[in-house]
Formats: sequence, structure tokens, C-alpha cells
Amino acid sequence: MDPNHSDYIYHLAVDVGGSLTKLVCFTKNEDHPDDESKASGSCPVLKGRINFKKFETSKINDCLEFIKSMKLHLGGSQQQQDGPGRLTAIKATGGGAHKYADLFKERLGISLEKEDEMDCLVVGANFLLKVVRQEAFTYMDGQKQFVKIEHSDLYPYLLVNIGSGVGMYKVDGDGKFERVSGTSIGGGTFWGLGKLLTKCKSFDDLLELSYRGNNRVIDMLVGDIYGGMDYSKIGLSSTTIASSFGKVISDNKDLEDYKPEDIARSLLRMISNNIGQISYLNALRFGLKRIFFAGFFIRNHPSTMDTLSVAVNFWSKGEAKAMFLQHEGFLGAMGAFMSSDKHGVQELLVKQAEQPNPVSKTQVPLDGEFNADQSIECIFYEA
Amino acid sequence: MDPNHSDYIYHLAVDVGGSLTKLVCFTKNEDHPDDESKASGSCPVLKGRINFKKFETSKINDCLEFIKSMKLHLGGSQQQQDGPGRLTAIKATGGGAHKYADLFKERLGISLEKEDEMDCLVVGANFLLKVVRQEAFTYMDGQKQFVKIEHSDLYPYLLVNIGSGVGMYKVDGDGKFERVSGTSIGGGTFWGLGKLLTKCKSFDDLLELSYRGNNRVIDMLVGDIYGGMDYSKIGLSSTTIASSFGKVISDNKDLEDYKPEDIARSLLRMISNNIGQISYLNALRFGLKRIFFAGFFIRNHPSTMDTLSVAVNFWSKGEAKAMFLQHEGFLGAMGAFMSSDKHGVQELLVKQAEQPNPVSKTQVPLDGEFNADQSIECIFYEA
Repeated sequence: MDPNHSDYIYHLAVDVGGSLTKLVCFTKNEDHPDDESKASGSCPVLKGRINFKKFETSKINDCLEFIKSMKLHLGGSQQQQDGPGRLTAIKATGGGAHKYADLFKERLGISLEKEDEMDCLVVGANFLLKVVRQEAFTYMDGQKQFVKIEHSDLYPYLLVNIGSGVGMYKVDGDGKFERVSGTSIGGGTFWGLGKLLTKCKSFDDLLELSYRGNNRVIDMLVGDIYGGMDYSKIGLSSTTIASSFGKVISDNKDLEDYKPEDIARSLLRMISNNIGQISYLNALRFGLKRIFFAGFFIRNHPSTMDTLSVAVNFWSKGEAKAMFLQHEGFLGAMGAFMSSDKHGVQELLVKQAEQPNPVSKTQVPLDGEFNADQSIECIFYEA
Repeated sequence: MDPNHSDYIYHLAVDVGGSLTKLVCFTKNEDHPDDESKASGSCPVLKGRINFKKFETSKINDCLEFIKSMKLHLGGSQQQQDGPGRLTAIKATGGGAHKYADLFKERLGISLEKEDEMDCLVVGANFLLKVVRQEAFTYMDGQKQFVKIEHSDLYPYLLVNIGSGVGMYKVDGDGKFERVSGTSIGGGTFWGLGKLLTKCKSFDDLLELSYRGNNRVIDMLVGDIYGGMDYSKIGLSSTTIASSFGKVISDNKDLEDYKPEDIARSLLRMISNNIGQISYLNALRFGLKRIFFAGFFIRNHPSTMDTLSVAVNFWSKGEAKAMFLQHEGFLGAMGAFMSSDKHGVQELLVKQAEQPNPVSKTQVPLDGEFNADQSIECIFYEA
């Protein structure tokens, strides 16, 4: 999005998490007349795009600068400093919505209207799953497959949000959900331990590194204990990880003697596997067949998705299914966005929302523009 | 035990695990006549002690040397090199029983008769829980409390064995059990990651270090995210760990800038909490009210036991109980010991076995003598 472009900013919401701050904003696109919608007979109120962007919370100033430079808080470039489009308050969720409220007020003159984090997360998930055509997908053996989910068949499901920590929610319907579990071993653990153990400068570097790593150098495998043999009685193959980081015990090596990529790989396997297992145990507990993994830990990373899928499949003996979301990290921000009634969003019926050209890479760059791949084209109709 | 002492070695068994090798051996004590037992009318066959000792598997030679120096394989000091007490085979379990079989044969002339690891573990647990008076205990708020468990009320229970990795078993009776779950995040992870992150030279040093640590310097707490506030809606207090090692993300620090004791503490909390949670979820799944935690990870460490107890209590809302075992690390070795029929152990009825002076410290020194605190005085009667 170009600040000199003639888009209107109709709406803006933020989700300030422990590690990442997520921003969602709607831009009306005036360039395209509403040709198709006219044919349907109902009257389109708005047509445009929902845009997504993320920032590191430790660099919250980048987020403020972005909003400022894009004039998002002023209703876009067309608006005057005190024009009608000026936002005086925006919806905000995430723990940091409390912590950074003063900063937003001071720097942008915007009040943060706090929305409950869990409410937003579930509202966002339900919206995306129901409205965006290519939102949910499975990932197995390197294959990404989009899944069409009928509205009538959506509930109940387990939503696993992997941020710095992990929250698990049983979702039974619109506004009907319960936090049933969680774990402190999440994205913050991957990046925190990874930062201490490797010289990586960012989460994405660490993830990138893990691609090239071999966890067998670090982990104690069943075969390492059983002299290369399986423990077939309990279905443990020789390559099953018996103890994460267990091989380090008997090696006469220091940290510097290990390759950072092998460490990154072990960390990723350990954490993904653990989340997959705890998720499965909670799905089992409530008889849920579908587990949706969301949050910015995943980042469309093949090994993460593969480990989560394999863990769920292994433990559930194929009964439960791991699924992923195209807008994985933006559920909370999306929910905060939906919660606003400033522009009557809640009263509008979203009839169609889709990504025109779904792509497999959903990484959102930390600097510069909104990520066009993740933006959602949508038309709001009158209800 | 003194090699020149006149004890007989009646029996010897080993459990060669991924990190530790455990040894159990029975010594007959001739110094004390069987006064009490005569009064009972039945005829005592053997009276003596079951002794316990552990070694690091990476230093398996220490174990072989110990057996050699104590002449355990020769049936104790009274026996000649080829005398009647000479052991030509001993029961062995654990993954290393396969791996190190040749070494035992070569160095001691002993064949290892391999017994299934899980079978041994459960046989050992059932034996100790039924026979030793002060075996099981709870640990809450720094208080250790022994629990008397009626034989009729023992089953079913969940046995969680925390070695390098973690195995979870639903035990329904003698020889009736099933491996229901496990996790690769266990003692090997604590020690492996701890070794990489601190300059500790042993597991026990790392554990000792964790006593003095403060995990709040390393972990991202709920209060860190919510600006010091609780997230009371879901019962998360401001001191709940939201993300293990999550604070490291936003700190502009290197590994050297953190205190090793704080890192050790965070690691211990992370791993104990996770094991407690997965154990609870499995206990819930099968309606088990008692969870026995065993294995050499625990080592009677207050913080470990406290974290496990609190995790089980928190997640189960007080429904399930965490319990610990005095001989926590020796279940497998004990089971291997029991599995031998060389001396008709299986045909003998153990009427009484107790520790004369139970002490709270059960750490077994790695060098030197058997640990007297953990040895069990016992009398075998004819069935």
C-alpha cells in the first residue's frame, strides 16, 4: 500500500502480543467499480481489502512509525489531520494493549479500546474459517492441501494458538468457547532458547537455520539406547526421539562444538512435537476431531507443520486431524477488527472474501508494505 | 558394603539406561539371628538387605569396576573365583542391556539375560509399593508425607518414569499394564540443555544450581505481558509462566549475561511442569486418581516435586494426586532383580521389607559404597 494511493482507511485494529504486534486494516479500493455485485441484487456497502502486517513487540516503535507514515490513524492519505476519517480510538487486543496504551495515545493520539484476547482470537478464527475460501489446510508429507469446511460442520473444534506461549480453546460456536489448556513451551521458548544457544539474530533466521539441521546429532534416539534396534513392542522405531537434547549428555563437547542448525532443528522438533501431543490429548478429552493450529510460531514452516501433523496423527492413530490457517498469526487482530462497531462492521454481512491468488508462502515481511499475498479482497453488503 | 565383610551375594541385577546404570543386589546378613521371625511360626529362608547403586552410563566402566572390586559377580568375598556362588548370568534391563552385553561378558564373564524394560519397571513398582512400608509419599509446600496404600486400593494407577525420556504406564495389576504415553522432554533434556547453557559438570550440580535460581529473569510471565496484571478471566495469575525462556527474546543480552542458576531454574520448571501436565492429561483420560512419579530425574529435589505436584493439582483441580517413590530410580533394576528365578525369588514370599530409618535424602553417591539409606532390610519366607 502506498501512502499516496487513494485508498480510504476505514478501520484499523492491533494485537500486541508478547513477541509480535499484529495489525489489521481495511482499505477501500475505489479503482474497481462493483460490477459483479450489482448483478446479485443486493447493495454493496464497501469493497476493498483487509490488510495484514506484523512487527516485533520489542520494536513497538516500528509499528507506531508505520501507522504514522501510512497515515492509517488519519484515515489514509486523503484525510486531513482533523478530517472526518481521523481515528481517535482503535480496537486493540493482546497483553500489550494494556502495557502500550499510553504510548499509542502519546505518539498517535489514539486511544486503545481493549478487547478480550480470547474473544478476539475465536471471533477471528470463526470469521476466517467461515468466510475465506482458502483459509484452512492440511500439511502432510510436504503436501499442502486446502480444505473446504462447511459452516454446519465447523464446530466443535480445538483452536491451538501458538504465540510466545500456547493457548488451547474448545470452540463450540460463535462466542461459545472455553480455554481448556495451554503450555508455556511455545514460540517464545523456541526463540528464547534458540537465541541463547545459537548466534541467530531473529526468529526467522533461526527457523531458516533449522531447515538445514539434523536433530539426530543432538537428540537421543530410541536406536541410540537400544544399540540401533527398535523397541517394536511399543511401536517405537529406532529413529523416534527418546530424549530431546539427550545425546549432549554423553558427548564430550561444548556448545561451540555443535552446529547451530542441528540445535535449531532439535529445538523445533521438541517444541512442535510437544504442542502436537498436548493438543491431541485435549482434543481426545473433548472428542474433537479437528485441531486448528494458529499463531506466528508456525510461519508456514514445513518442518513445524509436518511435526505437528505427524504428532497428532501418531497419537490419535489417525482419528484427529491437524489443520493450519493461512492467516495463522492474525486471528486476534482480525477478531479485534471485527469487534469494532464504529463503522458498523458487525452489522454488515460479509458475503464474499477470498484471496485472489493463494500462495503457499505467507510470511509477512517485517518492514515496508503490507503483504499483498495475505490481504483479503472483500465486499461488505447490507444485511 | 565392605568387600571383606562376610555377606553373601545372592543376587544381582542391572538396569542400563540412556544416562544412568542402576544396580540392585541382595546381600545376606549372617550377623543377626532370625529372632523375630521364629515367633511367627513360618520358616525364614533368607534375611538380609537389598542394596542399590547408580552409575553414569557414559562411565559404564565404573559400574564394571565396582562389580569387580566388590566381587559381586563372584558371589561376594567368601566365594572362590570358580566357587558355587559365582554368577555366570545376571538379569539386565534398559536399552543398554543390549548395547553393553558384550562388555559385561568380556570384562566380568557374565552374560546379561535381558528382561523387557517395561515389564521390569512395573514389576519393580508393584513390588516396592506393596512391600516397602515407607515407599510412596506426597510432597506439597515443602512437606513430605508418606502414604500407606492398601494392596486392595493400589490399582489402577499411572506410573510416570522420568529417565532421559519419559514413559507413562497405566498399571492395572500384577503384569497388567500398558504404555499409554510418553514425552521426549525428560531428564536428558534437562541435563543436555543445561550442559549447553551452563558450565555445569554434572546433573547433580545443575540441580543444585537451580535451588538458588530465579526463573522470573528468564521466563515471560503473564504479568510481563499484561503490564503486571493478572489475566483473571482464565485463572492465570501474574506470576504464571506464559512462555518458558520467553523473556530472553526481548532482552538485549547474550548467554554469558544470564546467571547459570536462573537458567537451571527455568529449565527445571519448564520440564517438570510439562511432565506434570502430560501426566495429568493421561490420568484424566483413563480416570486414574494416583500418579506415581519415578525415575532418576527427580532425585528428591524439592522444586521438582513441588512443580510436579502443583501441576497435577492445578490441572486436575485437586482430583488427581502426585506421588513419589523412595526408590524412584531403581524400579527397573528392582524388577529385573525380581524376575530372576535362579534363587527362586519368585517362589518366595516377601513378608516384610522396610527401611529401618527412612530419611528424606535418597541421593545415592556415584562412587564408593552402596547407599545405606536406600537399602531395604528384608526377610524371605517360604511360601
